[in-house]
Amino acid sequence: MNSPHIVIIGGVAGGASAAARARRHSESARITLIERGPDVSFANCGLPYHIGGEIAERSELALQTPESLRTLLNLEVLTLTEATSIDPVQRAVTLHSLRDGTESVMAYDKLILSPGASPVRPPLAGIGHEKILTLRNLQDMDRIIAAAASASRVTIVGAGFIGLEMAEQLIEIGKEVSLIELQGQVLPQLDPEMTRPLERELRARGVDLILGDGIEGFRGDETAVTARLTSGREVPADLVILAIGVRPDSQLARAAGLAIGPRGHITVDSYQRTNVGDIYAVGDVCESPDPLVGGHTAIPLGGPANRQGRTAADHIFWGEKAQPYPGSIGTAIVRVFEVAAGLTGASEKRLAATETPYETVTVNGPSHASYFPGAETITLKILWSPDDGCLLGAEAVGVDGVDKRLDVLATAIRGRMTIDDLVHLELAYAPPFGSAKDVINVAGFAATNMRNGLLIPVQALEDAEGEQIVDVRPPAVVEKLPVPGATNIPLPTLRDRLAEVDQSRPVFTVCQMGKTSYFAARILANHGYDARSILGGAWHQAPRPE
Amino acid sequence: MNSPHIVIIGGVAGGASAAARARRHSESARITLIERGPDVSFANCGLPYHIGGEIAERSELALQTPESLRTLLNLEVLTLTEATSIDPVQRAVTLHSLRDGTESVMAYDKLILSPGASPVRPPLAGIGHEKILTLRNLQDMDRIIAAAASASRVTIVGAGFIGLEMAEQLIEIGKEVSLIELQGQVLPQLDPEMTRPLERELRARGVDLILGDGIEGFRGDETAVTARLTSGREVPADLVILAIGVRPDSQLARAAGLAIGPRGHITVDSYQRTNVGDIYAVGDVCESPDPLVGGHTAIPLGGPANRQGRTAADHIFWGEKAQPYPGSIGTAIVRVFEVAAGLTGASEKRLAATETPYETVTVNGPSHASYFPGAETITLKILWSPDDGCLLGAEAVGVDGVDKRLDVLATAIRGRMTIDDLVHLELAYAPPFGSAKDVINVAGFAATNMRNGLLIPVQALEDAEGEQIVDVRPPAVVEKLPVPGATNIPLPTLRDRLAEVDQSRPVFTVCQMGKTSYFAARILANHGYDARSILGGAWHQAPRPE
Repeated sequence: MNSPHIVIIGGVAGGASAAARARRHSESARITLIERGPDVSFANCGLPYHIGGEIAERSELALQTPESLRTLLNLEVLTLTEATSIDPVQRAVTLHSLRDGTESVMAYDKLILSPGASPVRPPLAGIGHEKILTLRNLQDMDRIIAAAASASRVTIVGAGFIGLEMAEQLIEIGKEVSLIELQGQVLPQLDPEMTRPLERELRARGVDLILGDGIEGFRGDETAVTARLTSGREVPADLVILAIGVRPDSQLARAAGLAIGPRGHITVDSYQRTNVGDIYAVGDVCESPDPLVGGHTAIPLGGPANRQGRTAADHIFWGEKAQPYPGSIGTAIVRVFEVAAGLTGASEKRLAATETPYETVTVNGPSHASYFPGAETITLKILWSPDDGCLLGAEAVGVDGVDKRLDVLATAIRGRMTIDDLVHLELAYAPPFGSAKDVINVAGFAATNMRNGLLIPVQALEDAEGEQIVDVRPPAVVEKLPVPGATNIPLPTLRDRLAEVDQSRPVFTVCQMGKTSYFAARILANHGYDARSILGGAWHQAPRPE
Repeated sequence: MNSPHIVIIGGVAGGASAAARARRHSESARITLIERGPDVSFANCGLPYHIGGEIAERSELALQTPESLRTLLNLEVLTLTEATSIDPVQRAVTLHSLRDGTESVMAYDKLILSPGASPVRPPLAGIGHEKILTLRNLQDMDRIIAAAASASRVTIVGAGFIGLEMAEQLIEIGKEVSLIELQGQVLPQLDPEMTRPLERELRARGVDLILGDGIEGFRGDETAVTARLTSGREVPADLVILAIGVRPDSQLARAAGLAIGPRGHITVDSYQRTNVGDIYAVGDVCESPDPLVGGHTAIPLGGPANRQGRTAADHIFWGEKAQPYPGSIGTAIVRVFEVAAGLTGASEKRLAATETPYETVTVNGPSHASYFPGAETITLKILWSPDDGCLLGAEAVGVDGVDKRLDVLATAIRGRMTIDDLVHLELAYAPPFGSAKDVINVAGFAATNMRNGLLIPVQALEDAEGEQIVDVRPPAVVEKLPVPGATNIPLPTLRDRLAEVDQSRPVFTVCQMGKTSYFAARILANHGYDARSILGGAWHQAPRPE
């Protein structure tokens, strides 16, 4: 089929990518882009940064306009137009113009659904207050900017990626910010111990961070709105931003009889085909096979959406000669002032929830050669399969170089690489950029040492409570950040002071970063002790002054 | 063997790593470290940065001292001690003390050779002048610092990694710097077109860059030394730094009958064993199987040295249960003021020289979302096998994010990943860190488009000389950087102006960055033209004012 009529519903990431790719295949195809909103192909991920002024010009966020898509790609672009029904038998969609209310029917040869997702707005008391806003598109952004102009106190509900970005940006423009999260941690996609540095950073910057508390409802008047929390606490604000997740806009698909997954996503195969002929779905509305833990997963991010759109277009023109979409592993990052954190692949939570066997290790290392100015500590956690050593996931947090480590590990996961491969990665090393042994290599060393029995790890300091703990740090460091109940035997003196360690009990070694505690455990193990090293060190895990 | 006597010759990267790893295996092993110099385990790669003052304290460069190795690892450390012969039958080395001239014989159970390499000092006229120095260790560094103190003009011979780092650092401390390179490009490890931004940066910072000219000899007096070049030019200076490469210190090994490769390296197997029983070699002195193009390769870098040391120690204690060393692919990076450049795997030069079949594509892309402040253009070249799409190498140059892209591609090469895998890498994307379509994804798009015939590439603007060239940039951009002989048909108008393109001849499309020229070529190809897109765009390839 060289000149099909391709109708695409949804003109942002996935839909726009599908249209562009289809046009590369064929100049004679008719390609129609239907968009409910006034804008196409805008930079969704940039919205918080225009609110905070870091992206100065609103026009920077409009990657394309209906006019530019018409001239560059020869598309028919219908904005402010809603698809209200699909007739898969007649291969036609009914369109409703939001401009003039007219209805029309448009036939298609191929239909690509890319309607995206909408912010969740739970049916709580008072949720309809006009100062309770969500952020999904340019109009939402404009409303928040307008409301923020006269607000001094802003409450953000939800400490996921968007909630955190909004908290940062609103602090930057001088607002008082309360950030409320139902979970006992920010960034619930990550494992809790990895988010502590983010929480410290938020509090240090003045965010009123409320964890482990839910919203019961809202009470408001014309100027302010107060959130009532499950704990009984009340949080007053001039503006509330709800950032508690998104829900796929799959109503149209459901009504047309397309298969829908348990959380409301359209189910697709590896060519983005739905269960109904000639209908594809891409982006936030769909879920695809999870290449890591099985089942299906939905990753509502721009990168996967773009590539799914490309895959659908390729399948229209090439059929099964097209490269299938390999599934999404999910890589994400957030900046919170000076600290960045993110993950790729599966978290420990997700592996546990899906009963996937895993091993894990956490290490600390400098962002570049420690002897070169500006090195900052990165905490890196990796997860792998005990069967074959294949990587399943990674999480990282730190001030510098977090994105690089996540990208390397996202690549390794995509390549089905193992902990042995991490040992031998040759990463770019010059003092300003890296280390001869990068923290990723070090994670590989630790993981393979676990497998071969050289390292018997203890995941957290708390797991050693009440046990025989030997703290091998220099006394001056111990003094600043003591480990309760530990005996201090600095590493250089350990061989001479073995008599002070009780050989009848397991011994747990601890240090600052989790490196010399391993050295100490090896000395002890080689002398017949049941010695275990506390991962990550006291640096990360012990409580510190906020 | 639980308590062997392991003798290690050479106490820096590979030797120190072998010693540390051996000690983790066994507390009862006797481990002796023999070092010709006064220092062990120093930060070789940091030397230029202390000369330039960026690393303020000399002590930062001493990662370990003989004393710290004794206390932490229970090593016997003999510095200022040279091994003068090996008796593989008696398993003994003869040692010569540089302190007092005494000789002694030391028996070993296992011997690990890690003597490193020495700077090349060719037998040129005048080479013995005391102001012609090389940089390899802390004493060399001290000599350069002393000589630089009274020098205003410094000549650097060789524009490889160390030559470039020295040029940067010496400019930073106010010297007049001439940098002379025999090849017609800096950083001869890279392909020449990738080094142009470095050359522009060097000249912009005031370096007198002399390319394609060799040294005939030196002429000097007590205070100054003048280099005579092949071209006849004379370059006077107060100090000359030779940085034209290193030569493996394999004399001792050769005398003991160990197998030596064509360029003087000790040949080892994948456990770092030499051809003589109980003798291993690690680091710059050895060469190992090249996993990419076959044959053997020597990568004189700290990362491989460390991991080879670890491998040798593992083999001593575990035999063939140890993980073999997988060979080095070679990843390296250099910072030259604001610009960074590097490579991983094989360059086009190396693939051509080894007659390895390859394909290549070069793309440009922003270091992070282009709508977010601070995005800088990265130029990325990838090379892959036409047989299976497996990546063979990559080179990158730019102001920001070069190290990250090299690391991702080094990982992909190590994982035997393909151009299709690059399409689907899920790299961390938030506006401050990346793009929904990272430049690496874009390279994957371009490479797979080449394979499937959507993209017919032209590697460089020069390859289109005299042909029908259509420049699809906006007229205002064309005016600033015109492409000689091209017809300007801006992309949005192309469909309406097809009549201006001669269908009887091939048409070469060009744009600024190599992206819209592809779009244009697709339009033309779909209308029956033989259309080819000029990779990398006019931005990178056209001459620009220096």
